[in-house]
Amino acid sequence: MNYDDALDAALGKLHDEGRYRTFVDIARTNGQFPHAVWHHPSGTERPVTVWCGNDYLGMGQHPVVTDAMHGAIDAVGAGSGGTRNISGTTVYHKALEGELADWHGKEAALLFTSAYIANDATLSTLPKLFPGLIIYSDALNHASMIEGIRRNGGAKRIFRHNDLDHLRQLLEADDPAAPKLIAFESVYSMDGDFGPIGALCDLAEEFGALTYLDEVHAVGMYGPRGGGVAERDRLGHRIDIVNGTLGKAVGVHGGYIAASARMVDAVRSYAPGFIFTTSLPPAVAAGAAASVRFIKSARDLREAHQTQARVLKTRLRGLGLPIIDHGSHIVPLIVGDPKHTKMMSDMLLEDWGIYVQPINFPTVPRGTERLRFTPSPVHGPKEMDALVGALDSLWSRCALNRAELAG
Amino acid sequence: MNYDDALDAALGKLHDEGRYRTFVDIARTNGQFPHAVWHHPSGTERPVTVWCGNDYLGMGQHPVVTDAMHGAIDAVGAGSGGTRNISGTTVYHKALEGELADWHGKEAALLFTSAYIANDATLSTLPKLFPGLIIYSDALNHASMIEGIRRNGGAKRIFRHNDLDHLRQLLEADDPAAPKLIAFESVYSMDGDFGPIGALCDLAEEFGALTYLDEVHAVGMYGPRGGGVAERDRLGHRIDIVNGTLGKAVGVHGGYIAASARMVDAVRSYAPGFIFTTSLPPAVAAGAAASVRFIKSARDLREAHQTQARVLKTRLRGLGLPIIDHGSHIVPLIVGDPKHTKMMSDMLLEDWGIYVQPINFPTVPRGTERLRFTPSPVHGPKEMDALVGALDSLWSRCALNRAELAG
Repeated sequence: MNYDDALDAALGKLHDEGRYRTFVDIARTNGQFPHAVWHHPSGTERPVTVWCGNDYLGMGQHPVVTDAMHGAIDAVGAGSGGTRNISGTTVYHKALEGELADWHGKEAALLFTSAYIANDATLSTLPKLFPGLIIYSDALNHASMIEGIRRNGGAKRIFRHNDLDHLRQLLEADDPAAPKLIAFESVYSMDGDFGPIGALCDLAEEFGALTYLDEVHAVGMYGPRGGGVAERDRLGHRIDIVNGTLGKAVGVHGGYIAASARMVDAVRSYAPGFIFTTSLPPAVAAGAAASVRFIKSARDLREAHQTQARVLKTRLRGLGLPIIDHGSHIVPLIVGDPKHTKMMSDMLLEDWGIYVQPINFPTVPRGTERLRFTPSPVHGPKEMDALVGALDSLWSRCALNRAELAG
Repeated sequence: MNYDDALDAALGKLHDEGRYRTFVDIARTNGQFPHAVWHHPSGTERPVTVWCGNDYLGMGQHPVVTDAMHGAIDAVGAGSGGTRNISGTTVYHKALEGELADWHGKEAALLFTSAYIANDATLSTLPKLFPGLIIYSDALNHASMIEGIRRNGGAKRIFRHNDLDHLRQLLEADDPAAPKLIAFESVYSMDGDFGPIGALCDLAEEFGALTYLDEVHAVGMYGPRGGGVAERDRLGHRIDIVNGTLGKAVGVHGGYIAASARMVDAVRSYAPGFIFTTSLPPAVAAGAAASVRFIKSARDLREAHQTQARVLKTRLRGLGLPIIDHGSHIVPLIVGDPKHTKMMSDMLLEDWGIYVQPINFPTVPRGTERLRFTPSPVHGPKEMDALVGALDSLWSRCALNRAELAG
């Protein structure tokens, strides 16, 4: 067995398909985000504007967040020093869990080192708590949910994306007495479309299923207090377990679930991915708690965020560029070929100082490769003009199709 | 299906068996670690000494670390704002990966959000890279390795802990042409014993297997530059993939693997647990890099650490207390019953202000429940005297057995 040859073959496949990932090495400029410094492979440094970050509200540079982090470092040091059970539970972790439970109107919340592991650990632990559990999972659920659902070989059914009829068929085909859980997202990050939360809750009620909602691309951004789409649509009480992240709109790091006290206690007690890992640094918990507290009343930030997304979509649509628009804050621009998408991303970065990553298979289906823009309240008119102008030139230069402008 | 009843049953089982976990809510005091403030459930605050943390060298409060974190927050803000591929690669991540590769004498290193996910993601991805891979796993490997090995249903063989004959039997029984990997640890954290790294590498060489070594309880603490037991024993070049943590001796947070450039590139390109998750905050990466740089030349800290462990073991053995001693820095004291262990832990905390968590099943086998002490260079003679005195009193008060003192 030649292991190097096997690795070369695996890597060669990615190169051949044009989907080998090259990381772009940047340093955001605190206080001036979305501006950042690109450390060019040649060794030079160049200013760039980040258009693909997930710091949706710019909270990653908000003084309320950075001050809280500085304060915690001064008070208690760098790391937590242990797992949650073995010396790694601090007042910062407890305070953050309190903020998060309140945010979602739940009895309790549980921190994980990431929303990825929160999904993975929770969804893989639920079959231990409910023997015979069948999980019904939307076909476009995030990789972390898929990994969690697949992990222990429990029963699973995949329903076509947002297809309520298909889900009903699957539910009807199973034993009515079996424990069931329906897992879905509120905002699907690659197309920016919404899940039909209310109708999914209706089906769950009809078939006696639990509901599991991933709100990672919604927390902070939707609802009167930023609690997510379920809060916006007054459906939070019908969600049994909500999953969220502290690494996107909250601007820091980490993930969590919020649920009933006994649900959280059981996951806390049985999930290896929670139990056997060092807890988040106190400074991260402190920064996230300060951010969530601030975001709860930051309606203006949420409105500015939506406005920026609407403006960008309107302007790109005006140029006939093939964007997807489901009314969310995410602006995907379809290119449809992995090599072209990479080339356009490279040209935007090299020639215009605009940083937007190509999104290729397997993150999106083949043939729908895209550039995906994430405008935020800190992307001002100047940045927007530069982006729109660059895309207009690029589209012409590459002789790409534009939509008919008649509509 | 009554879901609440199922949760109550799952939780009741833990209560009945005396292994329901109660988190102790503390705030370490920066600069005065191991001293911390315990937030008592009654609402009061009490001073405690932490004896069960994994900040083995006290680096979590070292100014070189906290200064680096402050500096990065000031420069670039709180979170990274994205996955490694989508705007979340910063100069801090790259610099840290460089430090880590150097530490282990490997071509490359790859950061993960934790060592848990580094194990889980890497071990579950290797079967994709080497179709038909058989993983030979030590029976006492950490939960994160077990989860990774089990995840995709690949072929696995569990060999009895440190049992080279058993491993050889298993290797001999399999197809010589099949790709193979032997996964083990350098220091097993619950007993504090060492893996026979050299002999395991001999077997790997004989049978054409890759080697995977988890050094989370060794990095920073063993070897001339703290590169781990493999460095100490001059075996690093025989390890194909080494796993380490930034959350224990390094004092911050996160995990990594170090390996050949093409191995790291392939894991980077294929592991969902690496690809689809927000990267570590720049400040965490900066703090960890500063810590690793410092640790490489901190021989005095490593020596003080080992001295403290030896002194504690000598003193506890002198009192006839049933410790386990394999010559490492971990000091397990066997109680052998989950309820007694919990009670002793509670008494130490309430009556003496000494914080050491009970370690129960499934972390250790039933009947070997224990208190597990982690002395460090910042545990001075005063703290040591207080601990030894408390344990002596407690052992007498509870009329527990002591070893014969004749030896």
